Amino acid sequence: MNSFGHKFKFSTFGESHGKALGCVVDGVPAGIKIDEEFIQNEMDRRKPGQNVYATARKEGDKVEILSGVFEGITTGTSIAMVIFNENQKSKDYSNIKDLFRPGHADFTYWNKYGIRDYRGGGRSSARETAARVAAGAIAKLLLKEIGIEVQSGICAIDSIEANEYDFNHAKSSEIFALDKNEEQNQKDSILNAKNEHNSVGGVALVNVKNTPVGLGEPIYFKLDSQIANAMMSINAVKAVEIGDGLDSVNEKGLDNNDEIRTNGFKSNHSGGILGGISNGDDINVKIYFKPTPSIFLKQETIDIHDNEVECELKGRHDPCVAIRGSVVAESMMALVLADMALLNMSSKIENVKKVYN
Amino acid sequence: MNSFGHKFKFSTFGESHGKALGCVVDGVPAGIKIDEEFIQNEMDRRKPGQNVYATARKEGDKVEILSGVFEGITTGTSIAMVIFNENQKSKDYSNIKDLFRPGHADFTYWNKYGIRDYRGGGRSSARETAARVAAGAIAKLLLKEIGIEVQSGICAIDSIEANEYDFNHAKSSEIFALDKNEEQNQKDSILNAKNEHNSVGGVALVNVKNTPVGLGEPIYFKLDSQIANAMMSINAVKAVEIGDGLDSVNEKGLDNNDEIRTNGFKSNHSGGILGGISNGDDINVKIYFKPTPSIFLKQETIDIHDNEVECELKGRHDPCVAIRGSVVAESMMALVLADMALLNMSSKIENVKKVYN
Amino acid sequence: MNSFGHKFKFSTFGESHGKALGCVVDGVPAGIKIDEEFIQNEMDRRKPGQNVYATARKEGDKVEILSGVFEGITTGTSIAMVIFNENQKSKDYSNIKDLFRPGHADFTYWNKYGIRDYRGGGRSSARETAARVAAGAIAKLLLKEIGIEVQSGICAIDSIEANEYDFNHAKSSEIFALDKNEEQNQKDSILNAKNEHNSVGGVALVNVKNTPVGLGEPIYFKLDSQIANAMMSINAVKAVEIGDGLDSVNEKGLDNNDEIRTNGFKSNHSGGILGGISNGDDINVKIYFKPTPSIFLKQETIDIHDNEVECELKGRHDPCVAIRGSVVAESMMALVLADMALLNMSSKIENVKKVYN
Amino acid sequence: MNSFGHKFKFSTFGESHGKALGCVVDGVPAGIKIDEEFIQNEMDRRKPGQNVYATARKEGDKVEILSGVFEGITTGTSIAMVIFNENQKSKDYSNIKDLFRPGHADFTYWNKYGIRDYRGGGRSSARETAARVAAGAIAKLLLKEIGIEVQSGICAIDSIEANEYDFNHAKSSEIFALDKNEEQNQKDSILNAKNEHNSVGGVALVNVKNTPVGLGEPIYFKLDSQIANAMMSINAVKAVEIGDGLDSVNEKGLDNNDEIRTNGFKSNHSGGILGGISNGDDINVKIYFKPTPSIFLKQETIDIHDNEVECELKGRHDPCVAIRGSVVAESMMALVLADMALLNMSSKIENVKKVYN
Repeated sequence: MNSFGHKFKFSTFGESHGKALGCVVDGVPAGIKIDEEFIQNEMDRRKPGQNVYATARKEGDKVEILSGVFEGITTGTSIAMVIFNENQKSKDYSNIKDLFRPGHADFTYWNKYGIRDYRGGGRSSARETAARVAAGAIAKLLLKEIGIEVQSGICAIDSIEANEYDFNHAKSSEIFALDKNEEQNQKDSILNAKNEHNSVGGVALVNVKNTPVGLGEPIYFKLDSQIANAMMSINAVKAVEIGDGLDSVNEKGLDNNDEIRTNGFKSNHSGGILGGISNGDDINVKIYFKPTPSIFLKQETIDIHDNEVECELKGRHDPCVAIRGSVVAESMMALVLADMALLNMSSKIENVKKVYN
Repeated sequence: MNSFGHKFKFSTFGESHGKALGCVVDGVPAGIKIDEEFIQNEMDRRKPGQNVYATARKEGDKVEILSGVFEGITTGTSIAMVIFNENQKSKDYSNIKDLFRPGHADFTYWNKYGIRDYRGGGRSSARETAARVAAGAIAKLLLKEIGIEVQSGICAIDSIEANEYDFNHAKSSEIFALDKNEEQNQKDSILNAKNEHNSVGGVALVNVKNTPVGLGEPIYFKLDSQIANAMMSINAVKAVEIGDGLDSVNEKGLDNNDEIRTNGFKSNHSGGILGGISNGDDINVKIYFKPTPSIFLKQETIDIHDNEVECELKGRHDPCVAIRGSVVAESMMALVLADMALLNMSSKIENVKKVYN
Repeated sequence: MNSFGHKFKFSTFGESHGKALGCVVDGVPAGIKIDEEFIQNEMDRRKPGQNVYATARKEGDKVEILSGVFEGITTGTSIAMVIFNENQKSKDYSNIKDLFRPGHADFTYWNKYGIRDYRGGGRSSARETAARVAAGAIAKLLLKEIGIEVQSGICAIDSIEANEYDFNHAKSSEIFALDKNEEQNQKDSILNAKNEHNSVGGVALVNVKNTPVGLGEPIYFKLDSQIANAMMSINAVKAVEIGDGLDSVNEKGLDNNDEIRTNGFKSNHSGGILGGISNGDDINVKIYFKPTPSIFLKQETIDIHDNEVECELKGRHDPCVAIRGSVVAESMMALVLADMALLNMSSKIENVKKVYN
Repeated sequence: MNSFGHKFKFSTFGESHGKALGCVVDGVPAGIKIDEEFIQNEMDRRKPGQNVYATARKEGDKVEILSGVFEGITTGTSIAMVIFNENQKSKDYSNIKDLFRPGHADFTYWNKYGIRDYRGGGRSSARETAARVAAGAIAKLLLKEIGIEVQSGICAIDSIEANEYDFNHAKSSEIFALDKNEEQNQKDSILNAKNEHNSVGGVALVNVKNTPVGLGEPIYFKLDSQIANAMMSINAVKAVEIGDGLDSVNEKGLDNNDEIRTNGFKSNHSGGILGGISNGDDINVKIYFKPTPSIFLKQETIDIHDNEVECELKGRHDPCVAIRGSVVAESMMALVLADMALLNMSSKIENVKKVYN
């Protein structure tokens, strides 16, 4: 079950400390210009080792396209992309190979499969998300052809929330902060946790502009349910909300409904989705990341022989996974929308005829 | 895209005011005793017209099994269930047939499909969820065979939150309240909104006991991502959280991690899921419902001819969809778990051999 | 696994002697006029009891549409159709309820599921194909919108082969014979077998005209592989060939290749499919049906208690399943093509833009 | 649509003359020992350049495993395998880059996608099947764990048919001939065609031993329909038959039915499949390959500018694709069976309990 999507679909592979990781993207329409520099830029936004707010691990994350692109153009065949692993310090993990790190997937992988690649978390490592960003870059190139834009940023670190959402500022911020006035506090919060060998959580906001009306396939492939699916599949995500999300609970019907005028909706409490279908307004989704489970403090746990032991991790980890996670969330949004855009093409017989007659 | 699930799968059909609605459940193992009374009881928990906190519409919601069960036992073939519609007052809808009710799917269905069955919201009506409860009842009968139990209740109405979670109390409460001390306040909140021709939101909690370790298929069919998918596909749901959910953001890593002892986890911040796989602890999921969009107050909107008009609904609607929605959420949880339980069977070659050798 | 198709998809349910059988058709574009009379005519072509060449069982096979159609037009939601069973003589089957009829699925269903509805073969009965014809009629209405036509006929009964293919003659022939000169011999062959309480095999030919170039999704959803899949899923089918099929083996490359001129292909050895994609020429597929396994002669078998017994069937059965099977094959072809037509819409970015820009 | 399978699933990528081709195999149970030498041996059976009966192209076809295997054992995560291309003579194709080779997918790919990688047929090349053999080797290692064996051979070249089926002989034959007495005639037939710059067709037989009863998921994922699907997806296959296949048509019901005794079936006309489910007897499938479309004789065709032109191919091609195709057919059979074996695990609640209780 390493695949996502129905018509625009991708499959990923690879372990944190294996030879390589990558993806196969399927269902990409032929005729799209593939801008390799753009793909690499997307990778670079997610890659670690760029500043003090992320892990010091350095990964080149160079993407190599193996198939599906001919003379710079997609051919309609499956696009395989591979990222060979470098800078692996597998030895860092030898002391934890038999124990289950609290808050990690070690315990569940071991029990489900009876075996696990313990090096860096193996398949359960967030390193897998590099492949999603590569696939997401292809999705973005498709969305660009029909005018859809996806962007993201950080709206909270720990309890320090953004009061304004400036996506342009986020682009240049080391922590992708949406609110430049809260940025320093948020940075301090991260560094404090880091200095205490602890970690903090955070919230990412993904915003989509220029979505056509009609994306989303009721009843069980709704736009919002697939977004929730996509976001909750990202490591460390524990909650997802659309539009007003949980604040909707405290609104009355009259306040929560978005009235409609000929020039558009008067408000956007819905987050751009009604009945599981895009209504043309901005799509807004918040994604809640728990604090990084990899911390450098003593914790109680057990090992694979069912002995109670103490665990004290070494190595290099992000003090706040939400930062780089926001780039992954943005990629997942692009992947969901690309799929929905292709699926929606046959909603009306009128559109079917446009293609065939 | 009216199907959900991969191995234990169901498809639904039917409009609010059409002839019938129903489902086809596929992938049910043979040999399960089908207790029709249990199925009907599940339907009755969701059905409207039972007290002042729900719509006054009366629907018998009698389920008829058309296939897949022979002499009271599942045969491994697809199980079709149908609920014929009664007590339809389609005329109630003639005055709104050309306009888009704010907060509803009218606008998006019309634009996506170019046609819609306006009677009672047609396919976008929460009436569709009756079919999910029927399918969910079959899922529960399967889960019972392997000891898994699913339960639910209401943990908040508007801003009135439960302080304790008593699932037994919820079973007998008219509003499925988890906290008997807050129940009356919550009821008052609903009736106040109703008297003002307005509506309120609410939060449901679904809890699962006795989940075996190992359910959930990384990377893109994780237990939590499928739960999020399932819950967000329910009408009016705007946020989903697993375990500590968004409170995780305000916890440090050391607090959020669940330490492990030989007799189990010392805490359950994770909500029973690590790396997308059940860890054997209780699964806890909160589902946030917006206030019912159907209110009886004047609202501004447009019609299908792009005229600006006023909309004032008549008819019978739930003042708080979260109440009956909690039963649907519980059913969706059962459906996800049934699917995951079957999918997980081949995780290890050792289990494959148990079946074949 | 009671579903077929990817974008235009249907699921079926129902046992031979259960309450009802039917289907849910999903992914049908909105805006198609549903001609109920046409659907019933399709059903009537398949239904038994019409002449001496088929079983004497009479089944009304009245289709009732439960959802997905509003004021005679498809709405884009799932279309459920149901056929309630009548004229069941389940008692006919009481003497065989514990034994495995040779050539039937009794043995395999029993061993796979540990239980089976023995009445009329239960789910394994060809009665299930009635639901396919109902779904196929919807597919045909879609194909009509883009000009594709599907037709079929019988090209061999036992060893008596058609020398010419006249689809118009087939339409009015009681055995759907393609060659009026061989029709009487073919009829005699059927009646001879019937009189001997035995049965004969036959071959159906399905032909498609006006297929646009481009249908079929390489590599694993090729047009020909999905046709083979569809045809082999029909009861009693043991071989499928495309175009020259097995005669291709005896041709040299130069003879088998279809040369191309600006006005089209010079020959059609390929059967209208190259590389798994339609080339615009006629699609021709032959489907080989084994003789009906239900015969009225003594046969050796075992029962569910592993006793060796003799089996002598009673009841009413087709002496040649190929006849009515050809209608099912035609329906399956329509279902495959409808799916392929929708899937192909996003093959080029140019077509995506046609819908969105 | 570059994926195949439902529970044991693989996706392939890569063009004939691209950087690499490969596959991602998903759903492989954890705990299977991966014998890399075995995988390479399977690849070597298919690889070209080994004798005069195949193309002189030399391809190392070295498989590199990138993920999913840890210390020689499967971990339950996706297994990516890659084969980097070598020995490409892309210049051979420059003279045909604008024209459509008769009998090839050039015409259909061009029209479907508006672009194509003309070098060696790009994605439509049978080179893609190398990835299937790699995936098939993994499937075989799984099947071995539960005792299922798959083998294959050539039963006809042109009109020269095998009279006996000796799979051991086939293993050592340069053309995988099943009948050593016909082998020389079959070889001569191939060389004659080759000398005439022409090509011949052939028939492969795939045989499976020790299949458990119960594999195959009615109604639309039957064992035989998925086998037909799998086989027809192989390049140049034009017909598939199960068991007696088209000879069934000329048998009466009494002859075609396989009677049953307590020690098994008295005959095997069915080819080991009843009602789409394996009956425990040998599975026998014949696969008909057309003559290689790549021949070195003058042919009429058109180019992408719609000019009528002459085409005379150069390069290196198999005079008979059935030979190496038989290895691919054997791999596809293993892939279908692995999928079916995993899918069948939940057919009965009794088996579900074996895993969970």
